[in-house]
Amino acid sequence: MLRKADTVNKALDAAIAMKEPEKIYEAMRYSLLAGGKRVRPLLCIAACELVGGDEETALAAACAVEMIHTMSLIHDDLPCMDNDDLRRGKPTNHKAFGEDVAVLAGDALLAFAFEHIAVSTKGVSPTRVVRAIAELAKSVGSEGLVAGQIVDTHSEGLSNVGLERLEYIHLHKTAALLEAAVVLGGIMGGGNDDEVENLRLFARSIGLLFQVVDDILDVTKSSEQLGKTAGKDLVADKVTYPKLLGIEKSKEFARKLNQDALQYLAGFDEDKAAPLVALANFIANRQS
Amino acid sequence: MLRKADTVNKALDAAIAMKEPEKIYEAMRYSLLAGGKRVRPLLCIAACELVGGDEETALAAACAVEMIHTMSLIHDDLPCMDNDDLRRGKPTNHKAFGEDVAVLAGDALLAFAFEHIAVSTKGVSPTRVVRAIAELAKSVGSEGLVAGQIVDTHSEGLSNVGLERLEYIHLHKTAALLEAAVVLGGIMGGGNDDEVENLRLFARSIGLLFQVVDDILDVTKSSEQLGKTAGKDLVADKVTYPKLLGIEKSKEFARKLNQDALQYLAGFDEDKAAPLVALANFIANRQS
Repeated sequence: MLRKADTVNKALDAAIAMKEPEKIYEAMRYSLLAGGKRVRPLLCIAACELVGGDEETALAAACAVEMIHTMSLIHDDLPCMDNDDLRRGKPTNHKAFGEDVAVLAGDALLAFAFEHIAVSTKGVSPTRVVRAIAELAKSVGSEGLVAGQIVDTHSEGLSNVGLERLEYIHLHKTAALLEAAVVLGGIMGGGNDDEVENLRLFARSIGLLFQVVDDILDVTKSSEQLGKTAGKDLVADKVTYPKLLGIEKSKEFARKLNQDALQYLAGFDEDKAAPLVALANFIANRQS
Repeated sequence: MLRKADTVNKALDAAIAMKEPEKIYEAMRYSLLAGGKRVRPLLCIAACELVGGDEETALAAACAVEMIHTMSLIHDDLPCMDNDDLRRGKPTNHKAFGEDVAVLAGDALLAFAFEHIAVSTKGVSPTRVVRAIAELAKSVGSEGLVAGQIVDTHSEGLSNVGLERLEYIHLHKTAALLEAAVVLGGIMGGGNDDEVENLRLFARSIGLLFQVVDDILDVTKSSEQLGKTAGKDLVADKVTYPKLLGIEKSKEFARKLNQDALQYLAGFDEDKAAPLVALANFIANRQS
């Protein structure tokens, strides 16, 4: 898995090489190559390999998903949004480059993600590439990241935010892109409709799992341990699982989501499914 | 041409129908349906028809280009960018909905443009759809709109901005998307490589023409006539063609670009090329 993360890092580095205008490339690379865990690209590649594709087949899509993830972090950190100063242990993009550059770097990463899939995907039929692009775009827009962020931002300080609304936020803000990562892997790897559907359901569970764990870490870890501002959700008066359920019940819910996720992999070859199982367990047990 | 603009308006309205979360759809629709001239969609459809396609074939691409144009206006108007209060005679998106919503509405429009092409293009081979997506993405990112905006923003107040830099800004900030509109029309309409290449060169000339005319209008018309803040370039100390060449020489340059553009259509059937000729003349002679 470490070797694969290294492959992803090299591919991202090569995909957005320095060019003119330097300022925008610097800003894009600053956030893209800041050393995230690359969970989404690894999920994409693992899903591709599970249905019979190889790493190379999914690599462009895997990088595209990480570009979009990075874009969403840059824009969510902006002063007009979550107003965060620290991300992955470094100043956020707008702190380092200014707000105007941060907005534009996000826009460029978003557009480049689609260019990269369209231009750099190898050995996949154009029909599948078009399908993958539609899936990925859907995970960003008003049915994905953006919808989650807007409902999240406009829920801060509200007293009547229940579990249903919280789940809506997380399913859109976090799970949609994780789902796209896994589904894109399945599509690029040549998976049939049943396989892609099971991967989608697996991804939805771990998407929610990912956010529940994030909520728990925000209240149980320090900023130093997380590489981003801890306790942020409390300060912003954001609704979270620990706030609604308490820490222990939240942990229990996380364990249940992890089990649910693994059920959807039951129909696949056990050995081939091992990397996705490992990633699900990694998400459940991560400490930052 | 008016009928076609109406078709585009109806297609845009249908493409982004109101849904939950309402705030984001409202914001997207507010700017998208604010009654622009639809120059880019009309160019896209005219190019498609010139190479033998019909209106329907280019409609999804035409709408996608307008979505991206709208996104770039929303983001460029932000306080951290050009800080504009007025657009098409109405408050800018962030004035009406807040900065956070404006950033997200732009992101959603950008992503949805790609989803729309991928999902709603009718009667075009997936190979051509993938090619069109790559072209469109390139016109946004660090080789298109974003590159132009960043060099533009960071040129304000500089005394050594020459014609070369100004042309770089305009070719990226304005011409890139006009070029994509025309080239996408050519691709969707089934044009061969020579035809698409001639359309590209035509588009590059009118792209620059469009911006030269914009610069001239900024200093010769009132805010009311333009539907946006006039004299803005002077206040922001932006470099423009009138500033570098004077008004008369700028007008002469515009006439030359118009003539150049029409040369690239010489190889096409005269009757079929008439709508593109009319659009080029419209761009040259527009008063707002």
